[in-house]
Amino acid sequence: MAQIGILGLGTVGTGTVELIEKNNDIIEKRIKERIDIKKILVRQSNKERPIALKDKITYSFDDILDDEDISVIVEVMGGEEPALTYIRKALNKGKHVVTANKEVISKHGNELLKIAAEKNVNLLFEASVGGGIPIIMPLKQCLAANDIFKVMGILNGTTNYILTQMTEQNKDFDEALKEAQAAGYAESDPTNDIKGFDAARKLAILSSIAFNTRVIPEQVYTEGIDTVTHSDVIYADELGAVIKLVAIGKKNEGSVEVAVTPVLLKKDHPLASVSGTFNAIMVEGDAVGPVMFYGLGAGKMPTASAVVSDIMEAVRNKNGNKIYCTCYDSLKVLTPGETVSGFYLRLKAVDKPGVLSKIAGAFGENQISLSKVFQKNTINGTAEIVVVTYSVPFKNFQKALAEINKYEQIVEIATAIRVEGEL
Amino acid sequence: MAQIGILGLGTVGTGTVELIEKNNDIIEKRIKERIDIKKILVRQSNKERPIALKDKITYSFDDILDDEDISVIVEVMGGEEPALTYIRKALNKGKHVVTANKEVISKHGNELLKIAAEKNVNLLFEASVGGGIPIIMPLKQCLAANDIFKVMGILNGTTNYILTQMTEQNKDFDEALKEAQAAGYAESDPTNDIKGFDAARKLAILSSIAFNTRVIPEQVYTEGIDTVTHSDVIYADELGAVIKLVAIGKKNEGSVEVAVTPVLLKKDHPLASVSGTFNAIMVEGDAVGPVMFYGLGAGKMPTASAVVSDIMEAVRNKNGNKIYCTCYDSLKVLTPGETVSGFYLRLKAVDKPGVLSKIAGAFGENQISLSKVFQKNTINGTAEIVVVTYSVPFKNFQKALAEINKYEQIVEIATAIRVEGEL
Repeated sequence: MAQIGILGLGTVGTGTVELIEKNNDIIEKRIKERIDIKKILVRQSNKERPIALKDKITYSFDDILDDEDISVIVEVMGGEEPALTYIRKALNKGKHVVTANKEVISKHGNELLKIAAEKNVNLLFEASVGGGIPIIMPLKQCLAANDIFKVMGILNGTTNYILTQMTEQNKDFDEALKEAQAAGYAESDPTNDIKGFDAARKLAILSSIAFNTRVIPEQVYTEGIDTVTHSDVIYADELGAVIKLVAIGKKNEGSVEVAVTPVLLKKDHPLASVSGTFNAIMVEGDAVGPVMFYGLGAGKMPTASAVVSDIMEAVRNKNGNKIYCTCYDSLKVLTPGETVSGFYLRLKAVDKPGVLSKIAGAFGENQISLSKVFQKNTINGTAEIVVVTYSVPFKNFQKALAEINKYEQIVEIATAIRVEGEL
Repeated sequence: MAQIGILGLGTVGTGTVELIEKNNDIIEKRIKERIDIKKILVRQSNKERPIALKDKITYSFDDILDDEDISVIVEVMGGEEPALTYIRKALNKGKHVVTANKEVISKHGNELLKIAAEKNVNLLFEASVGGGIPIIMPLKQCLAANDIFKVMGILNGTTNYILTQMTEQNKDFDEALKEAQAAGYAESDPTNDIKGFDAARKLAILSSIAFNTRVIPEQVYTEGIDTVTHSDVIYADELGAVIKLVAIGKKNEGSVEVAVTPVLLKKDHPLASVSGTFNAIMVEGDAVGPVMFYGLGAGKMPTASAVVSDIMEAVRNKNGNKIYCTCYDSLKVLTPGETVSGFYLRLKAVDKPGVLSKIAGAFGENQISLSKVFQKNTINGTAEIVVVTYSVPFKNFQKALAEINKYEQIVEIATAIRVEGEL
């Protein structure tokens, strides 16, 4: 019987408890031990707790920390503190830790994995990226023979749901966001999702593992989807593409490039058909080529699947060799100005002869080749112009934009979105 | 330094050697040991071997078996014998074994895993299913908290390439097969691929692990793609579907159903867009929901990716708790007659009034509801008729077919293909 303590009884905590109860017979057959939830840490409140759990509930972390029967501590409270402090204490006390906390792992994974190594305990965090989708262990073990040079994924279900609604149901951003909130797919304060911060944390974790170099969320160039309009979705469609919030990590000649941005993806790209709240992660290695992992990236039971599987792994592998921090390289993380990609640009200009050539001229002067330029609807003398560039250094693109912005014929530079591959 | 012996220097063996040489620095960082290929077993022949390998080559298996420096034996020769005997001897001698051999594992995995358990050594076979795609370890570990009730995959790249060519390039089966042979995607004797035997072995391995009950290839109902014609591909397209060779394993109320057959899949099914030589495996668990794994299911370097990653795992985990045979249940494997699915049927009949109603009548008498019936081209008085049924027990469908076949107006029952889901 493996006794565990759980920190937090929110959505993921409740799912974890339910899944252990439901599948404990299967768990016992698979790891030769049942899992016994001995204690659950919750905040003191008037909240009604399920009767079956009442004598497991505690309001004191030390009550769990000091319990010598408890060998695995499961952190599913979320947020940076006090989760970080609790995990640190648990590891230092020689307890195995399973966590779903992307914020703690993306910012403090290196410190925590070092403590885990000193204490020879497991620190597992499969649930921190991609919910129930197996990705951390496959990266660290199944693909370990590869030099991995790219990870690319749809890592946030909320934004993918919103973009899917904008594409398939012809909704504008605000409307799709409200609907996502009503459906429970977006929080009342959706900032972390919408602005790309959630995906940036997950990308920092994936990139650190894939490229064996430490990447923290602050180093990830991050743009949200709140500037994407329904017009962009329609023009993307005309260009044979869809707009997705994509997290991209690339390794190249001793440097790493990490970004979370809206991206125009050709419709035949494997990530283009990942819709709704589904997530997917593509990994490219020198031997394996491209592999993709797909599934539900959030939610009570999918996340509990990863948490409970990690608990089983921690119990099974308590005496085995463990994998700790794998960031043995120190690669430079490029600044956005040093990165290269194609761009889609939508702008509004006074509909007069010579405007298009002036815009094209500004790109030409900055060594930017254009793959497509077309003029759309003219309303009240203002024309909408769409430009697609070939690959271009981000700083050249910004310089061209600044020049174009000075032209008096330009009414507005509405959207600039990266393009992955060639349209 | 972990010293290994490799059995076989064909495509996968050569890839394994090349990958270890290329990435040994990365391997050393990741598992704290370099891999040293000490000996390679090849058949005595006049074949020219690379000079760099000359002093590693041996013609005697015992030379590797009795070498006390060698702790891991890598079997990449393929075929049932002598591979089975060699693996058995290696395990009994206390050596870790890594193999890519689907035939040996699907037929003898239980016996070999028992020996491995007795000797406390690793027996790893990630490369036996899906080439470089991580699937065995994800099933055994990352998804271990789930009650898994379905695995469904495109497990054979050769047949998927042929069906893709038939669909996208408007080719007939024979033409597409010849082209696949010319491109090196099909062997000169393509029987194992075309008839579904290769996929059946892989499904037996996946189902045994997913459902924790032993399934051997002989229990897999297996149909090949050689009866699929270009007409079927076109009619499937009109029905909003594609034809794929799909391996399906389902668990239901104490029994298991396993089949490899051509299947009509709706175009929005995640497996429908898996084209060319790519493979993909969907797994459905009670907590995680659907997850999919996608990548190159064969080929020199993708397969080497899985083999070398397994070697690294065997070295890393030599002293840890290992996962052996997980078939602790003994579920009944249903016979084809006990299974239920929808069917697509194409037949040729004399174009006379009353034929359609007679056909519909035969289905009705066998409690089979039809979702679609339509008549296609009539040539020289013979009409092509396409029927799509709702879900129906296979034995009822066969009974109806036998009755229809007796009608003198029926010229030919051309094709019967399973339908997954509703069209």
